[in-house]
Amino acid sequence: MTSAPGAAGGGPARDPGRRSAIVARRLVTCDPSRASSADPLGVIEDAALVVRGGAVEAVGGRQEILGREPGLEIALEAGGVVTPGLVDCHTHAPWMGSRDAEYAVRMAGGDYEAIAAAGGGIVASMRAVRAATTGEIARVLRARLRRMAALGVTAVEAKSGYGLDEASERKQLEAIAEAGGDARLPRVVPTYLALHALPPEAGGDRAAYADTVARSWLPAIAAAGLARHIDAYIDRSAFSVDEARPVLERARALGLGVRAHVGQFADVGGAELAAELGALSADHLEHVSPGGIDALARAGVAAALLPVASFTLQQAPPPVAALRAAGVPLLVGSDANPGTAPTESLPLALALAVRLYGLTVAEAILGATREAARALGLGEVCGAVRPGLRADLAVWDLPHESAIVQPWGAPRALAVLRDGEVIAAAG
Amino acid sequence: MTSAPGAAGGGPARDPGRRSAIVARRLVTCDPSRASSADPLGVIEDAALVVRGGAVEAVGGRQEILGREPGLEIALEAGGVVTPGLVDCHTHAPWMGSRDAEYAVRMAGGDYEAIAAAGGGIVASMRAVRAATTGEIARVLRARLRRMAALGVTAVEAKSGYGLDEASERKQLEAIAEAGGDARLPRVVPTYLALHALPPEAGGDRAAYADTVARSWLPAIAAAGLARHIDAYIDRSAFSVDEARPVLERARALGLGVRAHVGQFADVGGAELAAELGALSADHLEHVSPGGIDALARAGVAAALLPVASFTLQQAPPPVAALRAAGVPLLVGSDANPGTAPTESLPLALALAVRLYGLTVAEAILGATREAARALGLGEVCGAVRPGLRADLAVWDLPHESAIVQPWGAPRALAVLRDGEVIAAAG
Repeated sequence: MTSAPGAAGGGPARDPGRRSAIVARRLVTCDPSRASSADPLGVIEDAALVVRGGAVEAVGGRQEILGREPGLEIALEAGGVVTPGLVDCHTHAPWMGSRDAEYAVRMAGGDYEAIAAAGGGIVASMRAVRAATTGEIARVLRARLRRMAALGVTAVEAKSGYGLDEASERKQLEAIAEAGGDARLPRVVPTYLALHALPPEAGGDRAAYADTVARSWLPAIAAAGLARHIDAYIDRSAFSVDEARPVLERARALGLGVRAHVGQFADVGGAELAAELGALSADHLEHVSPGGIDALARAGVAAALLPVASFTLQQAPPPVAALRAAGVPLLVGSDANPGTAPTESLPLALALAVRLYGLTVAEAILGATREAARALGLGEVCGAVRPGLRADLAVWDLPHESAIVQPWGAPRALAVLRDGEVIAAAG
Repeated sequence: MTSAPGAAGGGPARDPGRRSAIVARRLVTCDPSRASSADPLGVIEDAALVVRGGAVEAVGGRQEILGREPGLEIALEAGGVVTPGLVDCHTHAPWMGSRDAEYAVRMAGGDYEAIAAAGGGIVASMRAVRAATTGEIARVLRARLRRMAALGVTAVEAKSGYGLDEASERKQLEAIAEAGGDARLPRVVPTYLALHALPPEAGGDRAAYADTVARSWLPAIAAAGLARHIDAYIDRSAFSVDEARPVLERARALGLGVRAHVGQFADVGGAELAAELGALSADHLEHVSPGGIDALARAGVAAALLPVASFTLQQAPPPVAALRAAGVPLLVGSDANPGTAPTESLPLALALAVRLYGLTVAEAILGATREAARALGLGEVCGAVRPGLRADLAVWDLPHESAIVQPWGAPRALAVLRDGEVIAAAG
């Protein structure tokens, strides 16, 4: 199906002037300028693209591209479907340890909020992160990112939120920076989530904890350039709108993008806050009012759907039809975390989004490529195959994008490229 | 976590006299002689096992095993959990082509039986298999088996059933034999499933087709030693009990084990037939009467649960509590097939079995190791870690067997051994 995937890895990025072509039987561009209602993914059959210096220089039909430059080296020839590399918009990937005992309890009927109240949940992961060094966290994260890359993923949002004290939150972000510096792994977009849960030493005082984060920890993180986004867990058993607002506002003033965990267990007004603050995404949304949906739509806030979590928690889906009708952009994330979504697979999340949430194949693919990239501030970097963007691609051992959303449970990418370089290839 | 996994690959099977040890922080033996109601999996903490000539020679505590033989070479040291290699008791793995268009239709609300009636479904796969050579099928199957091995699987049942004429069914079994001869892949157990669907050329005459299978095709397959088991799809839109019985009876007389697809869409008495014929397993069972469950229990027929299929079809689970209460052994299979379960992952099936069917972690693990091996006639070969069985093992990058049933969607085995040799290892 694919010849010489290694060739693309040897070339463009190392020699910025070198140009080569990638040929695909079916290319899913996700380029809005090629899309139509009949073809929302902008598919080109028998396609070619030119890569130069790790970027896409031209995209078109194979005859068109190769015809005007017959001598162009073909670095990779894909007999199946090629898509933009997948973009995972919501992960807690830098976690340490395992919460399998808690998972087994939940499978046997235990309740997540009760587990958390009993000292399990996020605070259990906090203990594991606090006990680890930056290097240990970075090593575990790198291995996880490698497995994600093998699944077709080329960009991953990664949150702190298991440190929950100033040094440990910073340690997680430093580990993200360390792993994120590796060009042979997916791009990593760091998010500061100190407002994930209240640490035991806070003595139950959420407002005081949030105040410390806003006034002291956050400015230092922003000054160090360790986070591109702020996030807060706004829910019944987490932080309230009033507790989260000062942190999110301060982060916005410091130049960070805003995202928020909203309505996973109860609607406490998080969607309205996300809209008010012009957030890039509101995530979860199992519980959101029609007014909240309207607010998201008017503010252009994307909805990040996290079906692995609602699957393991046996929750009803978010109101996808209402979000769609309101024109809220739909994203799909893995929510990779050791408790509610112990997964590493964005493709599995896509399979669940299609099966359990009723997303169309095109919605799922766009929600894990172009729309996800845009909501991570990577809209001019990746998420589509069009001139000017980086050559981040997934070459699938599958004939059609519909097959990508099947529940394979196994890597089905033949080759995964970042900046035109192969970062994962099928054994 | 694991040191020198390669060492185990170099040794025992090539030099039959050579002995080496494998050490595990936590060893899930699935050995009934070690099991109790409190510990149904027979777990040994800080364990060791001795491998000789690809077989398990001894199992016990690390101190006990290594203490009496201090010079014994340690071929592999696992910091996590080690289990028997997983055994996938129900797959249609030698399929060709893709039915992703049909899958997308089903996700959008299309009906499986209607799709099949319209010429999609099994008959679509039949066309792809008929068009392929033995070598092509074997090549696709080998690649699939390699991906399955990376997920921790060391034995796979593989059915024909996409040929549906004498030569094409035989071609599929020959491809299975070809791939199954590779000692660097999982063991493969071939099953003859000519009664999977009626081919178009049969003119709608199921009884005549079944009669031809029983009288002519099947004896030749049995004589050639190409199948160990017979299977038949007994359901509302497939074959009736009366149509299937002569084929299954003839196969039994020829020395083949019996298995049957039963009650996936409707209860047409398949469970009772499986019981009457002393089948090794009755598979699917979404629809089965209390009488059918009783019959299975009395005859000692195992229930092979296939949750990926019922998940993609959005079906209610089989009556697991009733099967459990009746004492029917529970198996979990991937049902890997291009239509209703386009997956390659037995671990994903375990995750769904625990989440959607309410299996305990121990039931899921046993249903994909010891019980599955027994139902495939491999009870004296693999499925447990005990002296005399082959050293088929999965070494997990996970601390506990509970973590194996999480919906990773990605390979989480560090090393997978068949006959004491590493057949897959994490990149």
